Amino acid sequence: MKAVILAAGEGKRLRSHFNRPKPLVSLLGVPLIERNILTLKECNIKDFTIITGCYEREIKEYLGNGEKLGVNITYLHNRDWQLGNGVSAYTYHKNYRQNEKFILLMADHLFQEEVIKNFLKQAPKINQNEIFLAADKDLDKVYDVEECTKIKAEGNLARELGKDLQDFNAVDCGLFLGTKALLNALSQAISQNQYTLTAAVNLMAKQGKVKLHFIKGHWIDVDDPESYKQAEKILLQALVPPKDGFISRTINRKFSLKITKKLAKTKVTPNQITLLSFFTAVASSLFFAGLHPFWGGLLAQITSILDGVDGEIARLKFLKSKYGGLFDSILDRYGDFIIVIGMGYAWYFTAESLLALLICAAALSGIPMSMLFKEKFHTIAQTTYLPEKHDGLFRYLPANRDGRLFIIMLGGILNWIPATLIILAIVTHLQTLFRLFNVRKFL
Amino acid sequence: MKAVILAAGEGKRLRSHFNRPKPLVSLLGVPLIERNILTLKECNIKDFTIITGCYEREIKEYLGNGEKLGVNITYLHNRDWQLGNGVSAYTYHKNYRQNEKFILLMADHLFQEEVIKNFLKQAPKINQNEIFLAADKDLDKVYDVEECTKIKAEGNLARELGKDLQDFNAVDCGLFLGTKALLNALSQAISQNQYTLTAAVNLMAKQGKVKLHFIKGHWIDVDDPESYKQAEKILLQALVPPKDGFISRTINRKFSLKITKKLAKTKVTPNQITLLSFFTAVASSLFFAGLHPFWGGLLAQITSILDGVDGEIARLKFLKSKYGGLFDSILDRYGDFIIVIGMGYAWYFTAESLLALLICAAALSGIPMSMLFKEKFHTIAQTTYLPEKHDGLFRYLPANRDGRLFIIMLGGILNWIPATLIILAIVTHLQTLFRLFNVRKFL
Repeated sequence: MKAVILAAGEGKRLRSHFNRPKPLVSLLGVPLIERNILTLKECNIKDFTIITGCYEREIKEYLGNGEKLGVNITYLHNRDWQLGNGVSAYTYHKNYRQNEKFILLMADHLFQEEVIKNFLKQAPKINQNEIFLAADKDLDKVYDVEECTKIKAEGNLARELGKDLQDFNAVDCGLFLGTKALLNALSQAISQNQYTLTAAVNLMAKQGKVKLHFIKGHWIDVDDPESYKQAEKILLQALVPPKDGFISRTINRKFSLKITKKLAKTKVTPNQITLLSFFTAVASSLFFAGLHPFWGGLLAQITSILDGVDGEIARLKFLKSKYGGLFDSILDRYGDFIIVIGMGYAWYFTAESLLALLICAAALSGIPMSMLFKEKFHTIAQTTYLPEKHDGLFRYLPANRDGRLFIIMLGGILNWIPATLIILAIVTHLQTLFRLFNVRKFL
Repeated sequence: MKAVILAAGEGKRLRSHFNRPKPLVSLLGVPLIERNILTLKECNIKDFTIITGCYEREIKEYLGNGEKLGVNITYLHNRDWQLGNGVSAYTYHKNYRQNEKFILLMADHLFQEEVIKNFLKQAPKINQNEIFLAADKDLDKVYDVEECTKIKAEGNLARELGKDLQDFNAVDCGLFLGTKALLNALSQAISQNQYTLTAAVNLMAKQGKVKLHFIKGHWIDVDDPESYKQAEKILLQALVPPKDGFISRTINRKFSLKITKKLAKTKVTPNQITLLSFFTAVASSLFFAGLHPFWGGLLAQITSILDGVDGEIARLKFLKSKYGGLFDSILDRYGDFIIVIGMGYAWYFTAESLLALLICAAALSGIPMSMLFKEKFHTIAQTTYLPEKHDGLFRYLPANRDGRLFIIMLGGILNWIPATLIILAIVTHLQTLFRLFNVRKFL
């Protein structure tokens, strides 16, 4: 399926602020229109038609034929872009192929990937004499309802649309599945001197031909500096994976998202952050070994925070890679080992105790077991090991990385090295032992 | 597809030796007919008809309706089993359903699973007026050609069959894809007082209706004490996985197969052997820690050998389980950790050196990396990490379990504990480092 992106308008309110054409305004390191293209690419859309108007040259110059983004882009120019976005949308009739359905969206409306995926799943049910429109019913959560196009919905049909509608129960998200019927309606509206997309959709709504898809998830129309800030907030919040550990969710993400927000604007890559996190672990180890446990502990927690940033940047800037995932996993283990060895060294240095060797060894051998167990389970059961599902109450044991590094931080700050290593050894092996007994019922 | 197993004969030559009906003679812990049923079950065959004759009662008593093997078994009795196996095969006409194709084999002919799987892949190509017969062209490798039914083959058609055929280029393996045409030929042969399966197949061969499948792999007709021993040998050899490590292949399997042969006759389960291997590792560690490195080293090698036995028993006796695979992986890692900790303890005990702690820690952290890397690769790349393919020349580094435990054995016997731990640390981390650099091109 092809996507048609409307990028013809002037976007005055942001222009004055950023001094760039609105579709090319960078949000957390990625221009708005590029983010839309890459989000759609994740949904398996590879062919794009961009309708240009005001900033034809700049947009073409920046995106080219799409090659560097791994997609195909063609352009259509609308000279009369000032008339309204209906005229821009209608421009696509020049490239329209018989019986085609296409996605139609605005360059400056951002959507969560899941929203678009769910919308596209319904696409096959739409006939050529209808259109499909993403709408949001959750009006309390919609940003700046005032500015939205309102919808009066009956069931999953739109009865009327308009910016000044008084009686409404949903708003238009600006994401369409277009058909021949939409182009016809646009043509009809234009012939009546009505130049907005909403006018054409209204014509179809009156005939009961506008089906609605009520979205669940985030979207936003980036229109002015305030909504730009809100968009940043939404995108950053969406980076927290649903299966985050307790410490990660309640502590680390508060910091890592702030770091990610700063770093997103730079060219720093996820792998570079993985390396930085590893070197922070080395520094932590050296501070422990040099008998500065306070700083050792603090750096361990920073390691843990940075461990979140690489993934956040990768997801935020479409920089995920298989190698990055493997590199991160292996370096994280090395980071853990090195910190524990630093602590063991410190203990031995102050006490010269055989116990230091044995407890350090027990902690070292416990550390990789959580990952080993989960990965082996994945290979054997061909499904992901989910602590929430498979670990029962043991999921609260701080034996995963965020929990382990938090224990190390506390141990460092309180200067309780032996106790910390003992606790690490106990929680990691206890978790493995529990899993060995418990997992049988899932296999 | 249904499988028809001929188990009607008397099998005198084995009977005198084992004092049991031949199909129920146990070979490496599993009766011949049960092994055939379970091998076919691995090929997704779940419905069986067994043609009984001489030992109807005993066979029915042993196998029942197949429930305990997880298959469905029905029985047909051939009173005239003494006439010949053609009469037994013809008995199946009572249950034959229109246009059905069925596998026909003898209770006492054993096949490698792969042989049957490849044979079945060709089944859809066979018409109802033909039959399909597994044949072996590799006459040098066939056990006891004298006793086999010979085939004169032209291309993939059998022209003539017979035990005393002089001019032949293949032998009949006793594995058929039966059709209506086969039952008709059997009926015709019987009406001419020819009571063997070969006689009926010969009738069809003359009409060019016997298509041959030339097998690659092992099979054997278990007919007398000599072929029984040969069958044991073949089954045991087939247990060595093609991707075995160098030490495992050249040393460990020599011993593990002997142990497996002994244990196959007992009720010992694979998980019990996994536990035994783990306790052997604990014993090895205690001997190292107690400053008896020779015994520690020897026990480490025995751990390595026993590590092969659990899998061998599981494959040999159809006892593979997902839990067993996971249990084995986790306990192997614990076994390795414990041995290395015993060695570290011994070093520290004799030298009280900080180096003991550091090198022991380096070895401990290196040990799980091989498995961690491979499992994570599997999750990310959705394909198995194969040292032969992905490691290049580094595949010769003894960093996998068989290599590591061999190094420990040598170190123990030579009483070179520090050197052994240093070598372990170097090879394991070197392998990981190499993989981190090298794997990029495969992702």
